[in-house]
Amino acid sequence: MSYQTDPHPTVSGRSNPRRRVLVVGGVAGGASCAARLRRLDESAEIAVFDRGPFVSFANCGLPYYVGNVIEDEGALLVASPEMFHQRFNIAVSTDTEVTGIDRPARVISVRDLRSGVSRSERYDALVLSPGAAPIRPLLPGVDLAGVFAIRNIPDSRRIRSWISDRCAQTAVVVGGGFIGLEMVENLIHRSLAVTVLEKLPQFMPPLDPEMAAPIKEHLATNGVTLHLGDGLARIDENPGGGLTVVSEHGARLPADLVILAIGVRPEIALARAAGLAIGSRGGIVVDAQMRTSDPNIWAVGDAVEVPDALTGQETVLPLAGPANREGRVAAESIAGRATQFRGVQATAVVGVLGLTVASTGASEKGLRRAGVTNFEKVYLHPGHHAGYYPGARPIHLKLLFSKPDGRILGAQAVGREGVEKRIDVIAAAIQLGGTVHDLAAAELCYAPQFGAAKDPVNLAGMLAENVLNGDMPVADWLALGSDVLLLDVRDPDEFAAGHIPGAVNLPLSQLRDRYAELPQNRDIWISCGVGQRAYYATRFLAQHGYRAWNLSGGYATYTAFRDAGLTA
Amino acid sequence: MSYQTDPHPTVSGRSNPRRRVLVVGGVAGGASCAARLRRLDESAEIAVFDRGPFVSFANCGLPYYVGNVIEDEGALLVASPEMFHQRFNIAVSTDTEVTGIDRPARVISVRDLRSGVSRSERYDALVLSPGAAPIRPLLPGVDLAGVFAIRNIPDSRRIRSWISDRCAQTAVVVGGGFIGLEMVENLIHRSLAVTVLEKLPQFMPPLDPEMAAPIKEHLATNGVTLHLGDGLARIDENPGGGLTVVSEHGARLPADLVILAIGVRPEIALARAAGLAIGSRGGIVVDAQMRTSDPNIWAVGDAVEVPDALTGQETVLPLAGPANREGRVAAESIAGRATQFRGVQATAVVGVLGLTVASTGASEKGLRRAGVTNFEKVYLHPGHHAGYYPGARPIHLKLLFSKPDGRILGAQAVGREGVEKRIDVIAAAIQLGGTVHDLAAAELCYAPQFGAAKDPVNLAGMLAENVLNGDMPVADWLALGSDVLLLDVRDPDEFAAGHIPGAVNLPLSQLRDRYAELPQNRDIWISCGVGQRAYYATRFLAQHGYRAWNLSGGYATYTAFRDAGLTA
Repeated sequence: MSYQTDPHPTVSGRSNPRRRVLVVGGVAGGASCAARLRRLDESAEIAVFDRGPFVSFANCGLPYYVGNVIEDEGALLVASPEMFHQRFNIAVSTDTEVTGIDRPARVISVRDLRSGVSRSERYDALVLSPGAAPIRPLLPGVDLAGVFAIRNIPDSRRIRSWISDRCAQTAVVVGGGFIGLEMVENLIHRSLAVTVLEKLPQFMPPLDPEMAAPIKEHLATNGVTLHLGDGLARIDENPGGGLTVVSEHGARLPADLVILAIGVRPEIALARAAGLAIGSRGGIVVDAQMRTSDPNIWAVGDAVEVPDALTGQETVLPLAGPANREGRVAAESIAGRATQFRGVQATAVVGVLGLTVASTGASEKGLRRAGVTNFEKVYLHPGHHAGYYPGARPIHLKLLFSKPDGRILGAQAVGREGVEKRIDVIAAAIQLGGTVHDLAAAELCYAPQFGAAKDPVNLAGMLAENVLNGDMPVADWLALGSDVLLLDVRDPDEFAAGHIPGAVNLPLSQLRDRYAELPQNRDIWISCGVGQRAYYATRFLAQHGYRAWNLSGGYATYTAFRDAGLTA
Repeated sequence: MSYQTDPHPTVSGRSNPRRRVLVVGGVAGGASCAARLRRLDESAEIAVFDRGPFVSFANCGLPYYVGNVIEDEGALLVASPEMFHQRFNIAVSTDTEVTGIDRPARVISVRDLRSGVSRSERYDALVLSPGAAPIRPLLPGVDLAGVFAIRNIPDSRRIRSWISDRCAQTAVVVGGGFIGLEMVENLIHRSLAVTVLEKLPQFMPPLDPEMAAPIKEHLATNGVTLHLGDGLARIDENPGGGLTVVSEHGARLPADLVILAIGVRPEIALARAAGLAIGSRGGIVVDAQMRTSDPNIWAVGDAVEVPDALTGQETVLPLAGPANREGRVAAESIAGRATQFRGVQATAVVGVLGLTVASTGASEKGLRRAGVTNFEKVYLHPGHHAGYYPGARPIHLKLLFSKPDGRILGAQAVGREGVEKRIDVIAAAIQLGGTVHDLAAAELCYAPQFGAAKDPVNLAGMLAENVLNGDMPVADWLALGSDVLLLDVRDPDEFAAGHIPGAVNLPLSQLRDRYAELPQNRDIWISCGVGQRAYYATRFLAQHGYRAWNLSGGYATYTAFRDAGLTA
């Protein structure tokens, strides 16, 4: 089917003359753009080209299709070429590659991958939505049979049949980010023994290391073999069949299959060949209306650079949500509307074997990388709902905010339940320029099974307020070991069960009787279980003239720093 | 124990002279206020008086204690008098009633309910947190044994033992609001046959009737007997034991116990007797710092009137979250800080037998009551996560927003999963003055099991944008039956399974071929399953010069209006 032989020539609309709008890439951004444009302009001639056999498929569902959580491949197909034609009068050509752009002539070269026949197509407006390709490192063995990356439905099919045809028992996943973790969960769901090889010493690179620490423990307790801080060196083929993944540190990991989940790289070959501006982050440069350096060409999705809404710096963020909104913005720009893309704040979530990890806005390392220093942070570990209602599970939460205005900069959370809910609320607050005071005053849903009278979001805001107004000076976990008095105000049994090296124990319940025993001339860094009792002690001692500091998040945060190898 | 014989006299702080701050009522607002004040002022003398045997107990947990979901009564006790004394040097007197306030002398009369002995106590600052009392209508039989209201732990105990001692089989719950629904769930959890009697024709009075409609069906399918639109007339004692609830319409409902959940009324007797200003809504009048008409007296919690953050009108909102924040604000005011309470937006949630009902901001009826007319609304029914991932359940969502600026006014949602998450996000947006454009552009957590590339919040915003910019004129469900063409663009099998009376069927898939059959000179109101296909059809027809309108939310919304008795 081609729009050239469109059986339903559209009437000419009132807005534009019959323009030809061509879209390269029919997933997420491209599909959204085409469908949105039709709703705005009946008169335009719209055609979509995709190199693959499908358009508009659910990219983010692929790992779950491999894991057979999604059993029916058809479920992944959000829309078919027939539906695009019928509903939107949009001509979709699959298995069709766009091989070149003649910008002066406003013509693209198109090749039918089945027939091999090429043709050229004129455009008035061109939209590029080529996406991003999985990174395949130039290492020995990465192209062996049984080594897979996962980007599309055919990839998923190949992995599925490789697992079932060979009754695969063992898998090595290279990379501990979003896709890596989702593949771990799904391969385990397929009953494989899974090993993860991650070059960084932490999972989920977007997170700060101490916030990623619980993932490590969670995977280990779920039987996943972990090699963190160790990269891929090569992959060998075993004489008897199967593969051996060899790490940079020399570990030899047997694998019936290997998943490369190292990350993705924007597909810019076509754009670069056409002389479009490419940014420093390796993505296509676009303006707020998703227009490239060529006024007749727009670009959307994983291949473009977009501004970080917080820092203003250009970034590449391969996520489906922004891709869809970018496609929408491009369509409105083509239709003559002034809509602008607001940039991204990197809100993301991943679930792995019952653990949920989510974040929004800037991380601490991201802020430092951007040279931002006037910020503070708090850690807390509240239950996901009221503690008096059965089944409350802790949410490990880190909130970053600027000094002195209290503007929210970012948040990271890890836990079992209600994790992404809190990140979504904070994401909305960040989007609207909210402060920690707004979080403290937020009026959120509360019933015992859903939250608490002081929701974790409220608590995060209140703690941050305490820091900003000087009520609760916070000590630096990374400076543990400096010459301060470490005071643990938990009860003796808690202290005995484990405490920060060098800490002395004076339970909060005895503090009012015994505070005189403490030195007035030394900094006192106070900790407890999760930070609350230490906060009470900090307030008490500060008002009695002591130099009291709170170790935010208490022993729970200490163990996270320790497990991340950041402190003794 | 009384602060008069405090074994640990506090040192004099640097901030204030040793002031005496007395708090009347030790739950939620009062407890928060006392604890917060101590953190701000070590030097103040703080005492809390409560009429009941407990302070700081989890009010919102009481129905679940009755239902034995919370088995241990101790779990409800957030803090004990001992803990208040030990941690905060706060003297708590339980079973102690404050019987009068001598404002000129700054003295309260206090009565020990165990000894009957009265005494007077001087204050520098007085905080009233008396709460609200369940409404007991003046009807025959409401004081019979076996007729209960639930406000505190002793009430819950009585209901628990009444159920177990008499092996109660049947219960009538009078009132279908928050407490009523929570009691229904918990009585069913105790294996009782439950009947609900609600004077209004809908459950959850804060919601608009069409949004409350699904609750009715859900309770019915769970075996609850419903009497909506029928009030309580009297309660008779059966000769053979047990009770009979007689409704205004003459229904006779057998009951081993009756729960009165008609609502609560602010406890203002003490304040009124003291001559403090009482507002038109029957609550104690306070300023933004929770100060009453007497500069030395503050009031917080269910007994006070607070401004609605959207309309500015004074309201009484008996919810724990605001009560806690009000207590905090009062403490900061007493400590000399300028913190102000931002008002309330009535964010609330209730879970009943697997259904979640949540709302924030204004309802449509609330807006009309307030005389607001320049608003619009959209209905949608998106899945709680991506449809291609197994287990997606619909969220029925209504979004109210002002014209033409698009400011979000309120939202209501009903469904199984992810309901309160979406309301929390919208609540945060409302708090920060967000518009529907902000919701459309919101960057929220997306992975298949958590949400969608276009989250329900995004979709709500996008639909609202379409209404605001004229892309999607919406028809009025309540005007069904007027002389318009009702066009149903679903497929014939869907249409045959049920459709709006008088509608004609022209599937979207045939619209491009057959649209010429439609009249150009008539308003065409278009519907489908949930509104999406009708939106596509509306855009198509509008651009072809037809007078096309969208029936927002499609057949799913129609059935809600029909079940609510609002349309044929």
